Amino acid sequence: MQTLSVKTDRRTQLVDVTAQVQKAVASSGVATGICYLYVPHTTAAITINECADPDVARDVEGALDRLVPATGPYRHREGNSDSHVKAVLIGASQFVHVEGGKLVLGRWQGVFFCEFDGPRDRRLQVKVVTD
Amino acid sequence: MQTLSVKTDRRTQLVDVTAQVQKAVASSGVATGICYLYVPHTTAAITINECADPDVARDVEGALDRLVPATGPYRHREGNSDSHVKAVLIGASQFVHVEGGKLVLGRWQGVFFCEFDGPRDRRLQVKVVTD
Amino acid sequence: MQTLSVKTDRRTQLVDVTAQVQKAVASSGVATGICYLYVPHTTAAITINECADPDVARDVEGALDRLVPATGPYRHREGNSDSHVKAVLIGASQFVHVEGGKLVLGRWQGVFFCEFDGPRDRRLQVKVVTD
Repeated sequence: MQTLSVKTDRRTQLVDVTAQVQKAVASSGVATGICYLYVPHTTAAITINECADPDVARDVEGALDRLVPATGPYRHREGNSDSHVKAVLIGASQFVHVEGGKLVLGRWQGVFFCEFDGPRDRRLQVKVVTD
Repeated sequence: MQTLSVKTDRRTQLVDVTAQVQKAVASSGVATGICYLYVPHTTAAITINECADPDVARDVEGALDRLVPATGPYRHREGNSDSHVKAVLIGASQFVHVEGGKLVLGRWQGVFFCEFDGPRDRRLQVKVVTD
Repeated sequence: MQTLSVKTDRRTQLVDVTAQVQKAVASSGVATGICYLYVPHTTAAITINECADPDVARDVEGALDRLVPATGPYRHREGNSDSHVKAVLIGASQFVHVEGGKLVLGRWQGVFFCEFDGPRDRRLQVKVVTD
């Protein structure tokens, strides 16, 4: 298992980590298999979506912030309950198929680390397993 | 890895692909293992939910459309930012256990391809791996 | 594959099942691998989030109930369409890495069974596979 570092700049931010993950897949030496992505944080998540137009990631950030207001009737006293809710909605784990030593992504797909309580220094766990 | 074809008829539509996926599992020859489902699109997703009453899928479609309005303050100029947001909320990957050469689904569960920017011709990647 | 029993007390409830899942991992005898979690229900789901402060789980429950109203324009006549929608948003499957015979969870992470139509007796399928 490899652990990648991700630095985030904003409170809510989708960071394109496709190149980093692809590099981890290459260094694993696995030709055909599955790449397992896991976020060990509770106010961050992992998703796969369009990386061609950066406006899509921005729109997803805005939509999530509107969907889960920062100021709800929350009990948790750290002021980041909305960050936890967003992390739960997106999820901590995702997988992508691997063929020819590369991620099998759709034409417009990229892998995004989702920050919901930044800026912070984050980690992303990557494991690549041969079928 | 097998690639299934899915034809969708509406903009937002949950299509029951359980039989197609089950057929792919059977043709893989795997008796005990895991079935990995992956959607290589950025305005579509994959989920598992009730297939007994088709009204449930319709209710999920309606709820998602109300949750993520088509007309938000979006930047992406293709008019389908809401489709991307819905795809992110549901997710591109899911797995189901396999035993006796069959998907181990709960009594009321089926596999649904989720279209959020149809109608379109779509693909669903299925890989079945022995434990 | 092991099947764990989960008893829920409220309609919407996140139940911390980390200890139960960890026990299943230990009894599997797997040192290094992946733990696959699957919920065979259509009004329940599985997620990973903060278990240190129980208020976080309560906040997630409240936020989901506000996000998906119980009384929408729904077709399904069992009065639990919102439960199905919440289950779809969170998802039926998740995985966690295993090292040294233990779940590799982040410092604040726990595994939560998500009940959306309780109280009920539920099941959680756990499979641990060596890499």
